[in-house]
Amino acid sequence: MLKIGATGWIEKEKPRPGPLDAIVAPLALAPCTSDIHTVYAGALGDRHNLILGHEAVGRVVEVGSEVRDFKPGDRVVVPAITPEWRTQDIQQGIPHQHSESLLSGWKFSNTKDGVFAEFFHVNDADMNLAALPDRITLEQACMMPDMMTTGFHGAELADVQFGAVVAVIGIGPVGLMAVAASALRGAGRIFAVGSRPKCVELALGYGATDIINYKNGDIVRQVVDLNRGKGVDHVIVAGGPENVLSQAVSLARPGGSIGNINYFGEGAMLEIPRLDWGCGMAHKSIRGGLCPGGRGRMERMIALVAHGRVDPGKLITHKFQGLEGVEAGLALMKDKPAEVIKPLALI
Amino acid sequence: MLKIGATGWIEKEKPRPGPLDAIVAPLALAPCTSDIHTVYAGALGDRHNLILGHEAVGRVVEVGSEVRDFKPGDRVVVPAITPEWRTQDIQQGIPHQHSESLLSGWKFSNTKDGVFAEFFHVNDADMNLAALPDRITLEQACMMPDMMTTGFHGAELADVQFGAVVAVIGIGPVGLMAVAASALRGAGRIFAVGSRPKCVELALGYGATDIINYKNGDIVRQVVDLNRGKGVDHVIVAGGPENVLSQAVSLARPGGSIGNINYFGEGAMLEIPRLDWGCGMAHKSIRGGLCPGGRGRMERMIALVAHGRVDPGKLITHKFQGLEGVEAGLALMKDKPAEVIKPLALI
Amino acid sequence: MLKIGATGWIEKEKPRPGPLDAIVAPLALAPCTSDIHTVYAGALGDRHNLILGHEAVGRVVEVGSEVRDFKPGDRVVVPAITPEWRTQDIQQGIPHQHSESLLSGWKFSNTKDGVFAEFFHVNDADMNLAALPDRITLEQACMMPDMMTTGFHGAELADVQFGAVVAVIGIGPVGLMAVAASALRGAGRIFAVGSRPKCVELALGYGATDIINYKNGDIVRQVVDLNRGKGVDHVIVAGGPENVLSQAVSLARPGGSIGNINYFGEGAMLEIPRLDWGCGMAHKSIRGGLCPGGRGRMERMIALVAHGRVDPGKLITHKFQGLEGVEAGLALMKDKPAEVIKPLALI
Amino acid sequence: MLKIGATGWIEKEKPRPGPLDAIVAPLALAPCTSDIHTVYAGALGDRHNLILGHEAVGRVVEVGSEVRDFKPGDRVVVPAITPEWRTQDIQQGIPHQHSESLLSGWKFSNTKDGVFAEFFHVNDADMNLAALPDRITLEQACMMPDMMTTGFHGAELADVQFGAVVAVIGIGPVGLMAVAASALRGAGRIFAVGSRPKCVELALGYGATDIINYKNGDIVRQVVDLNRGKGVDHVIVAGGPENVLSQAVSLARPGGSIGNINYFGEGAMLEIPRLDWGCGMAHKSIRGGLCPGGRGRMERMIALVAHGRVDPGKLITHKFQGLEGVEAGLALMKDKPAEVIKPLALI
Repeated sequence: MLKIGATGWIEKEKPRPGPLDAIVAPLALAPCTSDIHTVYAGALGDRHNLILGHEAVGRVVEVGSEVRDFKPGDRVVVPAITPEWRTQDIQQGIPHQHSESLLSGWKFSNTKDGVFAEFFHVNDADMNLAALPDRITLEQACMMPDMMTTGFHGAELADVQFGAVVAVIGIGPVGLMAVAASALRGAGRIFAVGSRPKCVELALGYGATDIINYKNGDIVRQVVDLNRGKGVDHVIVAGGPENVLSQAVSLARPGGSIGNINYFGEGAMLEIPRLDWGCGMAHKSIRGGLCPGGRGRMERMIALVAHGRVDPGKLITHKFQGLEGVEAGLALMKDKPAEVIKPLALI
Repeated sequence: MLKIGATGWIEKEKPRPGPLDAIVAPLALAPCTSDIHTVYAGALGDRHNLILGHEAVGRVVEVGSEVRDFKPGDRVVVPAITPEWRTQDIQQGIPHQHSESLLSGWKFSNTKDGVFAEFFHVNDADMNLAALPDRITLEQACMMPDMMTTGFHGAELADVQFGAVVAVIGIGPVGLMAVAASALRGAGRIFAVGSRPKCVELALGYGATDIINYKNGDIVRQVVDLNRGKGVDHVIVAGGPENVLSQAVSLARPGGSIGNINYFGEGAMLEIPRLDWGCGMAHKSIRGGLCPGGRGRMERMIALVAHGRVDPGKLITHKFQGLEGVEAGLALMKDKPAEVIKPLALI
Repeated sequence: MLKIGATGWIEKEKPRPGPLDAIVAPLALAPCTSDIHTVYAGALGDRHNLILGHEAVGRVVEVGSEVRDFKPGDRVVVPAITPEWRTQDIQQGIPHQHSESLLSGWKFSNTKDGVFAEFFHVNDADMNLAALPDRITLEQACMMPDMMTTGFHGAELADVQFGAVVAVIGIGPVGLMAVAASALRGAGRIFAVGSRPKCVELALGYGATDIINYKNGDIVRQVVDLNRGKGVDHVIVAGGPENVLSQAVSLARPGGSIGNINYFGEGAMLEIPRLDWGCGMAHKSIRGGLCPGGRGRMERMIALVAHGRVDPGKLITHKFQGLEGVEAGLALMKDKPAEVIKPLALI
Repeated sequence: MLKIGATGWIEKEKPRPGPLDAIVAPLALAPCTSDIHTVYAGALGDRHNLILGHEAVGRVVEVGSEVRDFKPGDRVVVPAITPEWRTQDIQQGIPHQHSESLLSGWKFSNTKDGVFAEFFHVNDADMNLAALPDRITLEQACMMPDMMTTGFHGAELADVQFGAVVAVIGIGPVGLMAVAASALRGAGRIFAVGSRPKCVELALGYGATDIINYKNGDIVRQVVDLNRGKGVDHVIVAGGPENVLSQAVSLARPGGSIGNINYFGEGAMLEIPRLDWGCGMAHKSIRGGLCPGGRGRMERMIALVAHGRVDPGKLITHKFQGLEGVEAGLALMKDKPAEVIKPLALI
């Protein structure tokens, strides 16, 4: 990102590690919709000469003097969220995503250079990198730093229970992972709201039982009609129109829970429908949060894939070679033809 | 309530109990702001010849054939919320307040006649009435059906923890109970947002440590400045301006929790400030719900008062005699001079 | 059960329904190890002429005057646990399994006649029966009343999280369902402790990743060695030797959780190893409980099977025809040849 | 501690701080029963020339190069538990008390020299020390490092709810804090089990409503008789006889919770009564854990005292002057005359 609206390659000095840090060279990189937001919509404000990217698998090339568990040559998954871990905020129970301040755990392509580079810097390697086992493919691994941990967080935020009815709004890559996570947390019926054929196909493969297409009318009405006139137990917001949070509140039954993993990029205010929220009295809980990062989280994602619980590699619809592939991938994400879910660049 | 905007006394037949029900004659009655909303603002829609009132202590005068634990002459606390308890919804984990449908547990002066009458009907007496011990005064007892259970629910919804910083917005009678409940659940610092001198005095008595007056400027700024630049751990919304939910979200720290017990009576949409909610990523949870009712809840409120944990009787600023006293109390609530917190009619 | 140690068929009057009850004729019946305990070990004390059995799928033949949702001819799943639902105890948050007193929800073949009969009585039909959809087989359905709900409760009690390491001790039918439930709640690695080849085969099919055979030495040592020297995150106790609870505590990491679904039939005291429980300081939580019953729970089990999340029908290794088949099944459970997991009698 | 059974003063070099550490000189010290266990019962094994003590308030005398928030001269509360905070275990959700291994957070007088010295070493000062405000007395402050945080953890582990019935077994200093914490978390009736007159007096002052004396017979029977034949909602184990955990399980109602803060020093096994634990089916949860430490916890304790929620200073029954006072205090704790609750040495 050269400036808002312009991308290109720039030369920067190779970063140097502090005592706890590592320098990593990418093996696989994935462009993300939020990169598009950052560069084309200026979602994070104006940034000049910021390296984009926060989804990477790589090989360690250098480590700081205090790093204990990693050494050059190790293959690693690099989470999008790489917080400082020794903070007062974590001690007080604040989620690590905000361990220094709101969203401070999100550093790549936000408060420091991202991963779309020959080398990139990872703070606190022992706490933020996870070793990549051989039996996991680069395709699978590269979906863990953001897509998978975010989608799975949706099912955690909505606190999906055995046999429950879930609605997932939005079935782009994050929403698809939320569908998989809901099934994997024991949901019964899963309504997936989306329309693109490729996404629908994958949603069904990941465990959705009903597809709701907004082109067929109000999604709240469609779901409630199919669900015997009742709201659903859990709603995961993973995309959708501007008023999607409002739809989610309307979709939930009294006492139901809404988990938001959608990044709201526009407008001053989000809206909750007063009557469907019971005038404030409906016990419909609303939780939303940035995806968990750090080594432990990546190790848990790795465990899920290694033991065959889920295959996030299926999200990848387009593969490119080399760093130039990142450019191609970004271009694809920008134009978003219907058949794209997630591009990957193998370096 | 004769119709929207008009009150008066009407003659109705004495109600008859079903097999599980009881007929109760009031010993003490308290008008509530929501009665005012119902009759003057038409908050529940147009109702004709509906008896108002849902805060009562009384004496049982008749019981149905299947009632086991109560008999005529028993002194009882009558919760504002008197649900059906044997329902599929409760079985599925839906809060009892919505045990048949959204807010269905709220029957008095809503879906059936209220308690401002010589006799009133209580469904499922064994599950909804609680015996009133001698050592508790009518003043204390009559604050339990709504004020106390609602205020305490605020601290439950916000999940107040030991030593935490809490902000309670609104210090009318429900907010004052939320202050007391926060202190009683182990809060450290408690910011109480309000301005009326009588309310401020009681807030300090119930455990508030800082009073924030909106007349002195933006309350979010005031609280954050006093709290070393940080948001608070828990926010309880118990009143306030139209945008109070938005203020609450801004007041909470990342990972903080907001408990709403304010009945929102107007507007199609409530608003959440996008940026302060971290674009959906801040982990600030929002929960709101109707107060718990039923016998068990009232017994727990009774236990708190009987064991000296809290004295809700201090809320009562004005006392009247007889059923006419209800009229006087309603008039007082309508005009709301600054020194009124809660009126009571002793029958 | 004629008396301790003796079984046989007896004639009893056809039961009659109260206003809320139903009379059901069985379509499929499954004998359970606890029937064996009851009749041969006298686990519930001496009972005379008690009809055994609590795992049934059936057809409604008669309903009481107040039953709304069921009528003669309906195919239903009958949970082993059929509580009273309108009680003070449930109102106070006590689990429905104990809604009148400890374990009071367990009525069949305990405090009233069981289901091994031409007709049996179900209290509170609307709250305790669940309609059986056509697409679910009798084999699948008959595993829901006890095996499935119990095994799934194990994963709930242990509160299994995404990617976590779980140990399930005991892989009889309940333990196998606990393995399936752990996988379905998002466990990563699952150690299943057992030795019978048929059970091992099914455990792997249901999601176990490692089989631990107690014949190869101390199971705690075996698991910890495979788990890089560490205790596991969650332990589910679903069988095992007398000291299995003690093993579970030793297996758990600090802060880990133990969920017990094993019925302990002997001895005055269960033991917790003092040092491995950190002298009381290890934050290893221990929870154990009777399986959830009632209509809502059965509907959630049905949803899981109907949507293809799990197939409990695989548990059935032996099928018989007619009520006499129950006798054959009981005989099988008593002798327990290695290849038996669960017998079923189709009526 | 010179060796098991022998105490005396020894000369050691003044400790030196690492980059994150601090050296503190004591202002007030309190001997603890566990010091007695350590030296006279050898509870932690044989130790030679180990400095005892883990309850201290002090003045910083030196800080490491990376310490940001403290400087020489600052008055600080020093928690008994001073963990490493940047660890994989904390990242995985393991409580900080075990952030490197079981109980590893407990360092003073366990894995390193304790606080009964002219100077002592505190690891990670910014994360483990808390600034002591002027308005808090040394008596109050010196109860925070262990007594208060432990007692309050009991109410957390038992998850005390509004209006609930609680039993606290053992009313030494930790049990008294558990009584105060239960009241402060909103308990209704509180049964306190103990006999010494001074402890009884304080228990009533901290909020106990009923005193149960084991000399009057089986405590379970006594409590259940007073509680209308029912078990209690929550039990906190803070002392008592060897079989106290068993008593606690018997005391709890179905679905009740037991929080253990008692250090079990003897025996290979703790016992759970099989029948009262419902043969494993009673849903009586058992949790036990070492007290929380670190700066954030101490700040929350400070907030509770600073805002007048509780006065832990009342625990101190005997005061001494100087380091020699520690000896006198230890002697007192060893002999434990009935009127001693907690001695304090002001340095």
